[in-house]
Amino acid sequence: MGLVSRPPNIVFIGKKPILTYLNATLTLLANEPTVTIKARGRSIVTAVDVSQMIVKRMSAMGYTVSGVRIFSERLESKDGKERNVSTIEVDVSKSQNA
Amino acid sequence: MGLVSRPPNIVFIGKKPILTYLNATLTLLANEPTVTIKARGRSIVTAVDVSQMIVKRMSAMGYTVSGVRIFSERLESKDGKERNVSTIEVDVSKSQNA
Repeated sequence: MGLVSRPPNIVFIGKKPILTYLNATLTLLANEPTVTIKARGRSIVTAVDVSQMIVKRMSAMGYTVSGVRIFSERLESKDGKERNVSTIEVDVSKSQNA
Repeated sequence: MGLVSRPPNIVFIGKKPILTYLNATLTLLANEPTVTIKARGRSIVTAVDVSQMIVKRMSAMGYTVSGVRIFSERLESKDGKERNVSTIEVDVSKSQNA
């Protein structure tokens, strides 16, 4: 129930094994033309890895990276201070000619 | 002399402190309209961090992220096997209206 307010085509990268996010993204791509993989801080590399696993290993399925955005978000850290945290959003889409 | 063959407007992120790459990027931006920050694997987050430090803290200078590309490169690892390594390139440019 905690996921209700999240847009349905976003996969947020956390601390689970990378295959969790690969499967989540591929599951969403079965029904959505574009899925956004989002990550903050050290998880950014995992977001890029997931997108590349999909594009490289599933190339027969015709998936491409259709957009990459980077920005920073102000988040409150555990010590109560606000910090800028780098964020990435990678859009993966079905190719037009697939 | 080992840097001669590298294009002059690319900063490659390695294992040094992040301020090293921040300074290198800002130095190049004094003479180049666009500088590309490139990183592989776990250094990807550092490339994003450097770009965001420049855009956020130097906003009076009018720098923007003008492009982000992600892809993977086949590299030989220490055990002799080839592996796909995720790579990012972030273009930082002077704003048109700066």
